[in-house]
Amino acid sequence: MAPTEIPDIVIGRLPIYLRALSVMSATGQEITSSHELGERLGISSAQIRKDLSHFGEFGKQGTGYRISHLQEQLRRILKVEREWDVALIGLGDVGHALARYGGFKDRGFQIALVFDNDPAKIGQPVGSLIIQDVALLPDVVQQRGIQVAMLAVNAKSAQAVADLCVKGGVKAILNYAPINLSVPNGIRVQYIDPVTHLQRMTYYLA
Amino acid sequence: MAPTEIPDIVIGRLPIYLRALSVMSATGQEITSSHELGERLGISSAQIRKDLSHFGEFGKQGTGYRISHLQEQLRRILKVEREWDVALIGLGDVGHALARYGGFKDRGFQIALVFDNDPAKIGQPVGSLIIQDVALLPDVVQQRGIQVAMLAVNAKSAQAVADLCVKGGVKAILNYAPINLSVPNGIRVQYIDPVTHLQRMTYYLA
Repeated sequence: MAPTEIPDIVIGRLPIYLRALSVMSATGQEITSSHELGERLGISSAQIRKDLSHFGEFGKQGTGYRISHLQEQLRRILKVEREWDVALIGLGDVGHALARYGGFKDRGFQIALVFDNDPAKIGQPVGSLIIQDVALLPDVVQQRGIQVAMLAVNAKSAQAVADLCVKGGVKAILNYAPINLSVPNGIRVQYIDPVTHLQRMTYYLA
Repeated sequence: MAPTEIPDIVIGRLPIYLRALSVMSATGQEITSSHELGERLGISSAQIRKDLSHFGEFGKQGTGYRISHLQEQLRRILKVEREWDVALIGLGDVGHALARYGGFKDRGFQIALVFDNDPAKIGQPVGSLIIQDVALLPDVVQQRGIQVAMLAVNAKSAQAVADLCVKGGVKAILNYAPINLSVPNGIRVQYIDPVTHLQRMTYYLA
């Protein structure tokens, strides 16, 4: 089945399944079921089975899923059995938190380049990397063949920086700036904005 | 219509609409359409009209939406015409970034309490707040009637801290730790995990 035939909402749940499986596998568990996964994630077991059925057969009726096999298959589907180099732009609080974040390792990503536009920051080290001038981004990113970027810049700069990323060949942008980006067709953007998540919950509060 | 009848996926889109309207309104724009909103957000105009129709009539056929009115109504629906006090737990990189984040203001939230379990941090100031011992969280949060918490602790501590929040009466948790939380029915959890967003995009990369 061609990738485009599977709804993006289904794709969006696969990383959640993968994360839950990793937690189980870290405790030595070897087998799980759609029922157990569903309980853990607050998703119906029918939904989980339906989501996975888009990609083939991962378990046998009544015997559940072998966790390591399902992890392997999900990593392959999501293309994170390899490691993606990521460009990080903006070395403020959020950028530094991301640069130090331990959660990328073994999940398919590593920060390979860091950029800022502040002359006081350019040339400074962040871990084992050196902050580069964001003006150089299109060339450097293109040279390295980097397709994934994380934007941790302010709302005012975000669109201009996104344009630089697109110019450099970036195809996937994770945006921390609280602004919607305008990008050409074929470029993916995901947003991390704590307020939208908070507002989704206050709806239910008394 | 009772809140429970509206799918959570619809509720999840309302904050995105509200954010886009704020951007428009900041530039002085007064009227928009489902078509323009849809173009900006990559959502079909039919979907936007359908989402909004759950809550009544916000525009007239052919004349579009008055932005300020729609903002007001969305704020009311999402219960962010008021300001919610939020407890922030964990003052590492992410916690500090959140404490300094300018994006909460005028969007319904303010950080009112900060907690950590590190004796070296407890008693220290963060902006105008003093870091309190997380062991005191249930009492302090209950006393202040706080219903919203942000967890910026590590994966190992997250479940225990979530339990403390629930004990204190918290009803909505925004979790930055890369782990799924187990909470009683009626407690909402939203997750911020950059890797799940990145993995959702790499699926589409070549």
